[in-house]
Amino acid sequence: MDLYREALNMHKQKTGKIKVECKVDLKDQHDLSLAYSPGVAEPCRQIAKNKELQYEYTAKGNLVAVVSSGTAVLGLGDIGPEAALPVMEGKAVLFKKFAGIDAFPLCVGSKDVDDIVNFVKLLEPTFAGINLEDIAAPECFEIEKRLKRETNMAIFHDDQHGTAIVTLAGLINALKLVNKDIASVKIVVNGAGASATAVTKLLLEAGAREIIVCDRLGALYSGRSEHMNDAKIELAEITNPGKVKGPLSKVINGADVFIGLSVGNILTGDMVKLMDRDPVIFALANPTPEIDPGLAREAGAEIIATGRSDYANQINNVLAFPGVLRGALDVRARDINDKMKLAAAHAIARLAEKELNKEYIIPAPFDSRVAPEVAAAVAKVAMETGVARINISPEEVKRHTEKITEL
Amino acid sequence: MDLYREALNMHKQKTGKIKVECKVDLKDQHDLSLAYSPGVAEPCRQIAKNKELQYEYTAKGNLVAVVSSGTAVLGLGDIGPEAALPVMEGKAVLFKKFAGIDAFPLCVGSKDVDDIVNFVKLLEPTFAGINLEDIAAPECFEIEKRLKRETNMAIFHDDQHGTAIVTLAGLINALKLVNKDIASVKIVVNGAGASATAVTKLLLEAGAREIIVCDRLGALYSGRSEHMNDAKIELAEITNPGKVKGPLSKVINGADVFIGLSVGNILTGDMVKLMDRDPVIFALANPTPEIDPGLAREAGAEIIATGRSDYANQINNVLAFPGVLRGALDVRARDINDKMKLAAAHAIARLAEKELNKEYIIPAPFDSRVAPEVAAAVAKVAMETGVARINISPEEVKRHTEKITEL
Repeated sequence: MDLYREALNMHKQKTGKIKVECKVDLKDQHDLSLAYSPGVAEPCRQIAKNKELQYEYTAKGNLVAVVSSGTAVLGLGDIGPEAALPVMEGKAVLFKKFAGIDAFPLCVGSKDVDDIVNFVKLLEPTFAGINLEDIAAPECFEIEKRLKRETNMAIFHDDQHGTAIVTLAGLINALKLVNKDIASVKIVVNGAGASATAVTKLLLEAGAREIIVCDRLGALYSGRSEHMNDAKIELAEITNPGKVKGPLSKVINGADVFIGLSVGNILTGDMVKLMDRDPVIFALANPTPEIDPGLAREAGAEIIATGRSDYANQINNVLAFPGVLRGALDVRARDINDKMKLAAAHAIARLAEKELNKEYIIPAPFDSRVAPEVAAAVAKVAMETGVARINISPEEVKRHTEKITEL
Repeated sequence: MDLYREALNMHKQKTGKIKVECKVDLKDQHDLSLAYSPGVAEPCRQIAKNKELQYEYTAKGNLVAVVSSGTAVLGLGDIGPEAALPVMEGKAVLFKKFAGIDAFPLCVGSKDVDDIVNFVKLLEPTFAGINLEDIAAPECFEIEKRLKRETNMAIFHDDQHGTAIVTLAGLINALKLVNKDIASVKIVVNGAGASATAVTKLLLEAGAREIIVCDRLGALYSGRSEHMNDAKIELAEITNPGKVKGPLSKVINGADVFIGLSVGNILTGDMVKLMDRDPVIFALANPTPEIDPGLAREAGAEIIATGRSDYANQINNVLAFPGVLRGALDVRARDINDKMKLAAAHAIARLAEKELNKEYIIPAPFDSRVAPEVAAAVAKVAMETGVARINISPEEVKRHTEKITEL
């Protein structure tokens, strides 16, 4: 495939995608005495008296670590931290371009939960935020939970929450078009990994009441014993109120919404035909969706979204993570909580509202309005929910993001 | 002091001194598909097959982490990792400007040796080199020793080895001027901390035979029992062959060289008068030298060096660490061994040889010839001693360094 060769050449020619640059001059002895000894002693002394001054005198307030163990990289699986580095560098590029964030890739040389948690905790004096990336489930759940509890950084696992936010944003608008209420629709989530888990939980937060999650064995339900783990047991408890059992082909009966976070070509046209009126299909597996969009349409799907850029309605995390972290950083948030994620989803959805149609339920990835709106919405809710260390107006966050974005 | 206010203002205005920048464009969907999904999968796949390809397709080969626990920062002591960040950012600036190295500050939230070692080991998939900085003795010795043994990164503790290299460089030239041989001079090193330990060891490597190290209690000697630790016990074993006892004021008798890495104003004019002909005085305590240079001259000192920029002969680590790491990175060195450090010292000394005089025993910090010469010398010896992963000509290392330096 030519794109792969072109990508390889580009990586080789540039020798990677990120570099560290200086914000200060260093032309002579005087510059040296300001940036380094003896002048640097003064910001050091001030911070020693009051650690919050790190946000004024150092780069910390704009620094996010992109942390990965390389155990679940793209569709490539557990390729290890060395091979994951190009993805993490790429993520750092997106943070910079879309939201002016100084993100630095850190590929951790261990798969062990304790190792990764201890490593990230030790980053707190340097970074204001952490973007966890491509860490396999179920380890990613415990890592995130412990880091949220044991640190005061803005912790965000993009594979979970980025996907959840953008999926919810798309769904909010899709349901408007088919004139259904999230509180009364039946949603089938196919897949029970990290992203499916987070999508399910955020949909519940957003008011969904009837969600059935399926893995390879079929519906998760309270009391199921085969192929379960702690994360699936929890999912089974909070979903599937009717304790429906059986495979996807049965569970899909009468569903309003299908959300695929699984593998290609698992949803058939016949299954789509079993759904309620105006089926909403989010076939997000990459690169091959759970159902070919043409096939879905033929079978009666009303609205179709995928993870791909060559179809309409791309569910792309880049709509969420730059703005979410930007908003969190601007108010020095100690956490990224569910209400901030909901606010991000609604902000994204709002931007597509005016031109809403079946082929446009969500803004395009390069829509430069998105990150500023998301950042402002996230910052606002961070302040309202008490996780912000400082108060600034959401309008100012929006202006700051617009100014710092490099699109 | 006005410099401090100016430095504080500069740090505040810039909000720190470093940022992360992109080496690639991201203007449209095609750029996105090269830098990120799906194109990025190709370099990932290649590296998964052969980890050495990280050096071709990622930024790793030019990445150095500046790691500190903030336990021994400048003259400020144990101010903690948060307050140490301005210094580590400053160090990153110096690496970039002097040698084109992408250095990133990582202030570690623990003082524990195991924590720091484990943290740095987990950085190996991301960084080619580690600059340890401002970590207190004796912990720094164990941390460095274990990291050198347990990783294949280029590990350099600048407080130790940067100081040792530049001190040796200055001493090589000082001894030429007074026409003495390093193998036959008596050297008194005052101070027994990290830098004094490393200076002593490198002087021994360079051929010195009679060194006496003094701490607050006086000379270290084999068998001394008061105020010792593992590092001092080792120092006592490898120095002071005559097992001389007593305070600095006694030990200095007949010495050819005094090297102070201790505290201000501890060497008196009377002590200088007790030294051998043409005393060589390196009074490196900062900001107040062990003896005022004017006073030392009056007392008969022939050559005087300090750590300060406002006197002649500044012993400044910036002459060493950028070039040392540059040379190590260019040959993908698995280690920075003693022979590489000796080569760095000789390279620095050579550059001052032609214009050598009492007031010019060492190049000035902003001499742009230094880093390229040091890098070439270090790379050459890395290849000769088998720690280089690749072979390139030292001339090419020199040209590369000249090209990439931002002075």
